[in-house]
Amino acid sequence: MNRKLRMGMVGGGSDAFIGAIHRLAAFMDNQIELVCGCFSVHPEVSQASGKLYYLPADRVYDTYQEMFEKEAKLPEGDRMDFVTIVTPNFAHYDPAVMALDHGFHVVIDKPITLTLEQAVSLKEKLDETGLLLALTHVYAGYPAVKEAKERFRRGDFGEIRKVIVEYPQGWLSAKLEDTGNKQASWRTDPKRSGKAGCMGDIGTHAHHLAEYITGLKTTQISADLTAFIPGRQLDDDGTAMLRFNNGAKGVLIASQIAAGEENAVKIRVYGEKGGIEWAQQEPNTLWVKWTDKPTEMVRTGLGYMSDIAKHNTRTPGGHPEGYLEAFANIYRNFSLTLRARMNGEEPQPEWLDFPDVEDGIRGMQFIDKVVEAGYDDSKKWVDF
Amino acid sequence: MNRKLRMGMVGGGSDAFIGAIHRLAAFMDNQIELVCGCFSVHPEVSQASGKLYYLPADRVYDTYQEMFEKEAKLPEGDRMDFVTIVTPNFAHYDPAVMALDHGFHVVIDKPITLTLEQAVSLKEKLDETGLLLALTHVYAGYPAVKEAKERFRRGDFGEIRKVIVEYPQGWLSAKLEDTGNKQASWRTDPKRSGKAGCMGDIGTHAHHLAEYITGLKTTQISADLTAFIPGRQLDDDGTAMLRFNNGAKGVLIASQIAAGEENAVKIRVYGEKGGIEWAQQEPNTLWVKWTDKPTEMVRTGLGYMSDIAKHNTRTPGGHPEGYLEAFANIYRNFSLTLRARMNGEEPQPEWLDFPDVEDGIRGMQFIDKVVEAGYDDSKKWVDF
Amino acid sequence: MNRKLRMGMVGGGSDAFIGAIHRLAAFMDNQIELVCGCFSVHPEVSQASGKLYYLPADRVYDTYQEMFEKEAKLPEGDRMDFVTIVTPNFAHYDPAVMALDHGFHVVIDKPITLTLEQAVSLKEKLDETGLLLALTHVYAGYPAVKEAKERFRRGDFGEIRKVIVEYPQGWLSAKLEDTGNKQASWRTDPKRSGKAGCMGDIGTHAHHLAEYITGLKTTQISADLTAFIPGRQLDDDGTAMLRFNNGAKGVLIASQIAAGEENAVKIRVYGEKGGIEWAQQEPNTLWVKWTDKPTEMVRTGLGYMSDIAKHNTRTPGGHPEGYLEAFANIYRNFSLTLRARMNGEEPQPEWLDFPDVEDGIRGMQFIDKVVEAGYDDSKKWVDF
Amino acid sequence: MNRKLRMGMVGGGSDAFIGAIHRLAAFMDNQIELVCGCFSVHPEVSQASGKLYYLPADRVYDTYQEMFEKEAKLPEGDRMDFVTIVTPNFAHYDPAVMALDHGFHVVIDKPITLTLEQAVSLKEKLDETGLLLALTHVYAGYPAVKEAKERFRRGDFGEIRKVIVEYPQGWLSAKLEDTGNKQASWRTDPKRSGKAGCMGDIGTHAHHLAEYITGLKTTQISADLTAFIPGRQLDDDGTAMLRFNNGAKGVLIASQIAAGEENAVKIRVYGEKGGIEWAQQEPNTLWVKWTDKPTEMVRTGLGYMSDIAKHNTRTPGGHPEGYLEAFANIYRNFSLTLRARMNGEEPQPEWLDFPDVEDGIRGMQFIDKVVEAGYDDSKKWVDF
Repeated sequence: MNRKLRMGMVGGGSDAFIGAIHRLAAFMDNQIELVCGCFSVHPEVSQASGKLYYLPADRVYDTYQEMFEKEAKLPEGDRMDFVTIVTPNFAHYDPAVMALDHGFHVVIDKPITLTLEQAVSLKEKLDETGLLLALTHVYAGYPAVKEAKERFRRGDFGEIRKVIVEYPQGWLSAKLEDTGNKQASWRTDPKRSGKAGCMGDIGTHAHHLAEYITGLKTTQISADLTAFIPGRQLDDDGTAMLRFNNGAKGVLIASQIAAGEENAVKIRVYGEKGGIEWAQQEPNTLWVKWTDKPTEMVRTGLGYMSDIAKHNTRTPGGHPEGYLEAFANIYRNFSLTLRARMNGEEPQPEWLDFPDVEDGIRGMQFIDKVVEAGYDDSKKWVDF
Repeated sequence: MNRKLRMGMVGGGSDAFIGAIHRLAAFMDNQIELVCGCFSVHPEVSQASGKLYYLPADRVYDTYQEMFEKEAKLPEGDRMDFVTIVTPNFAHYDPAVMALDHGFHVVIDKPITLTLEQAVSLKEKLDETGLLLALTHVYAGYPAVKEAKERFRRGDFGEIRKVIVEYPQGWLSAKLEDTGNKQASWRTDPKRSGKAGCMGDIGTHAHHLAEYITGLKTTQISADLTAFIPGRQLDDDGTAMLRFNNGAKGVLIASQIAAGEENAVKIRVYGEKGGIEWAQQEPNTLWVKWTDKPTEMVRTGLGYMSDIAKHNTRTPGGHPEGYLEAFANIYRNFSLTLRARMNGEEPQPEWLDFPDVEDGIRGMQFIDKVVEAGYDDSKKWVDF
Repeated sequence: MNRKLRMGMVGGGSDAFIGAIHRLAAFMDNQIELVCGCFSVHPEVSQASGKLYYLPADRVYDTYQEMFEKEAKLPEGDRMDFVTIVTPNFAHYDPAVMALDHGFHVVIDKPITLTLEQAVSLKEKLDETGLLLALTHVYAGYPAVKEAKERFRRGDFGEIRKVIVEYPQGWLSAKLEDTGNKQASWRTDPKRSGKAGCMGDIGTHAHHLAEYITGLKTTQISADLTAFIPGRQLDDDGTAMLRFNNGAKGVLIASQIAAGEENAVKIRVYGEKGGIEWAQQEPNTLWVKWTDKPTEMVRTGLGYMSDIAKHNTRTPGGHPEGYLEAFANIYRNFSLTLRARMNGEEPQPEWLDFPDVEDGIRGMQFIDKVVEAGYDDSKKWVDF
Repeated sequence: MNRKLRMGMVGGGSDAFIGAIHRLAAFMDNQIELVCGCFSVHPEVSQASGKLYYLPADRVYDTYQEMFEKEAKLPEGDRMDFVTIVTPNFAHYDPAVMALDHGFHVVIDKPITLTLEQAVSLKEKLDETGLLLALTHVYAGYPAVKEAKERFRRGDFGEIRKVIVEYPQGWLSAKLEDTGNKQASWRTDPKRSGKAGCMGDIGTHAHHLAEYITGLKTTQISADLTAFIPGRQLDDDGTAMLRFNNGAKGVLIASQIAAGEENAVKIRVYGEKGGIEWAQQEPNTLWVKWTDKPTEMVRTGLGYMSDIAKHNTRTPGGHPEGYLEAFANIYRNFSLTLRARMNGEEPQPEWLDFPDVEDGIRGMQFIDKVVEAGYDDSKKWVDF
């Protein structure tokens, strides 16, 4: 198969945030082209957006249902290979299932669905169809994060004891959802966002990052969630204490009222002999700490990095990569795997390193558990 | 009174850690001189230390009891004015009480006593004698910390919503107490250290810093404490979730098994309009964050600092001060207050800004509560 | 014109460095597609590369001459719109002139040509044909750099007094050109690189950045160039003192033997009232300094940024952009301008903000002058 | 000799800057006591200052001449051991010579004298009397600087190739000397400051630091000096290119019009295999860079530091030391050496590590040469 992979899109009109990110990430590596889309529930917005993306009018659809049906009938050489779903959470599950039913692979933004039940059901559909799904937990896409994971995997630091993961933002410090801000509006609305606000939107990222790097599983959680803004229906701040399956302890802090913070994802993990620190806003540096020698400033793009980090790096040392490249790593690994599958070949192990439906289910469990723990003052620990 | 204040010392032999710090801090400003001491339970160590400190042999005592008795009988122009107690926790209370009974003011290292009861009793003794006590919660001595406190006090950021305070160290990642390390030995021994290990040694600092800067009081605490090193009798790691009297939420992380960390005290406090971040290892910078304008790098020694910060700064901008100067600020404010008292004058308000017995009681309450909460999986919140 | 712009490429085979960067940058925004190329002087490498880029075999050419001739004969709806030239310096001029002669716009890597004469001649050809040329001085593509330029332009800091620009790298600390390293080999070879080594490769970037941000022109230069590695034919290190047309003074440091440095481009500019600092390895932060108030951490993606910075930013605050996005900004502005021209419309002023042939000539003058000054111990200042 | 060393002081009244620094540094370690002084040319200021320093009135003198004469006649057990001279530059030489003539050792602030001739003459006097002199080049007192020196001395990085040392300040961005500012007034006055302004005040520090760490000697200098503020008589900004005796190249940047900078001393030195970076405003970190492995964050107070760094450190890792402790290291090494001399013992090698008259002469040569080079556009290199 000597052609680019063909992507369709649900959501992602020209006024949307995350849809634009997905396109930048998908196109960068010249492996994927956009061939069709239903970019909005408003047909005129969808058509206008499609035009901006240089699509022919007949590949821009009024509904996703129409898209899946018509695309499925196109000849193999024309129709899309996979669909990217970038709608608000409540509108993930239905198009995903329909896409799978029509034979299309799926890329989907996190959290994977509105409820845990939907996530489990989506996994069954994937098992049934044998199709691929990638979930864009972008922070796991950074090469320095993969380096951290690799170093714990190979045992550099001994047994893990302590995990501190945090995700402070400040953008919801005021009641932005009352000002017409589209992002704030749906993210604070339980009907569209689900049972968690801050914890669903960004707590899931922090939790995924912690389990991804450490390879551990959370077994118990204790939490305190708050909606600081009067009238806000979902949590805008929370802290959780975590216990892991190896006996390690953790703390997860997520906030959208940390006034003045941008998007300060940060994780520290400590083992017996040392540990790591990584902060997303300066993503090309991994701090590696030791009990008996100097802290090392491990940098992406340099010769000493592990193979998995190198595979996910595009530029040499000192030429900083960022959020879009981390996002693109998910698309690239997904597309390498998909292409191998379409060619009847075995994907290389490092290509399989993208978040999938299992991560999605794990995220929905996290949301369920943190919400259960977060408002009940009588129960200290919730089993995970 | 035109002379330096005269200090005696209990503990602080030439092989001790914190005693050396107290002397550096006390002498720097040329306001205090060492006139006597009982530097060790071993008389020969005490004498040898006294010689190194250029004391005459007859002012170096074998026991603190002997010291207080003999010094009290010296003429007013010769005898010490106050005593600094820098022994392990279990040996704070008795000499402090005896010093007060003999008319000597007291400086004491934290935590103030071995138990909350002792702390309360010590306060009664202070009330009774009308003497002064300073507690060396050093982190409250930094000018940037005082600047932070001032900015919250005057309302720059609106109501406080979230406090994140952390104190990770890595020095107890191995079982150092089995290697003959004197510091590790007493700090992990409940008889000498008290009911908490990590939380008593450094958690108290973190808690003090949080309440000092915010002016808030903790009302409820939930915690998870761990002793990661097999055979260690006291906690070497812990996380606590906090609730404050204004409705703010907090998290306190303290660890001595955060392998590779030095002494990474850090606090972030967020209000409605912005917040602050301060990290002790780069102590001359206070980060001030805003929802609507750039983060500011507020620096000690510069003209725009508030009066309270300036009062606690010795050098101009860009000439970094550190831990010893923060420590010296406590001694300086204590000695300014004491000198005023001895001169029958009213101390200026900024001189009174040093931790005292109330902070000590608060610290012992914190230890009690965090230990109560930290091992009980059945009770989520402990009232403070 | 509702289609992507069509790009051809000279150089940029699958084993090349800068060609890959150009493609990533060009494709990201979905405005440009690759339609043809001559990717190597070795036809088999060119064909293999073209296949990897999903080109049909008949649009992959053995020579650039063949490419320009054949593409020029294709119907308007098929043939390329512009060519990107990413060969070593000595092979810039000829294909650029031939492209222009056949009616193709040009994107070219820096330095623009091998000699100043070629650069001047290229400008004449551009004037004659009326076609567009973009020069990829990538560091001018960063939004924080544009913000810095804007703030000096509008006079925030008063008259500029001092400029410190530096570009240390360490990758040529050993004689890499003897090890078969392709990048090192041509860059240290006067026949392929030109009369300067380090100063041509990276000194030109530093000089461009300084003049771009300040809006000043260098009038005099004094320099000391060195080839530290025995047998190396071109400078691998140098310092230059600069004088500017408004009386400001500057210093430019470029090195490829700064062992342990990655790609540490940094610039500081001081005016009467304050100044800026920007370091490329953490590119989303612009430090803004003042004589009388705190240093500000100005961050890309935030609401207070100027319009020109916002126009060149793709992600919200805290979602770091990097080198590829800076590079892509040049392609995007070039393509916006080109599209407007092709549509007979007036480009918006901010679209014209990409380096062009004038910057290229300025760069070649810098190379001439710094080399003239850099080896002559008898002449202190060379007029610029 | 079991007593503190006795210090007298010339200059350093209660309104002076550097005198206060000297006292803080001298007293901290409990090795030195102030016994007398002539703190001002105004007798009443001198007396008032002496009272603040708790001196008896009869040890506070109206003139330094009177002080040296009267102190010399006091019994050995009472009179001062050494004098610290902290007057403006023009008033260094005469009291220093007179002190030596009366048998007193000397500590003196930099630059050592007003002219090179005076410095040479002072050395002759020292040789003649056999007394000690310490020069307070404070930046050489930092433990991380000593660690850097040690690592180059033992050859970790191979031959040194490049040195970049800089000292930007912004405090003279406006014409402060016209506002009654005492510090600005004498430092910009050739009669009191000498032939250089910025280069004498802070350029000498930068030059000393470069030669101290590298162990190299400057052999040639090229410079461009400027007085940016109209009417200012001495340079307030300058850049110098340096050549060293081993063939290394360097650049020295000093400025007092770098608006918004505090006291940003920074040095980078590169050898064949790696190098170091140290910035005074975060002085406890030494960055160690390598061509083939991660940059290391080497930190004062940690176990892996070399003996010379440990000898000059008072606190454990993570308890930051600063400017005053660096200053105190000079006093401590001077006093250890002096005490050994007074006891007829051989000082340990590490005690001798304080700047002395040779460093002072070197500094005066630097001033002479940089001024000679800095205003002559016809001569590129001045031999050093």
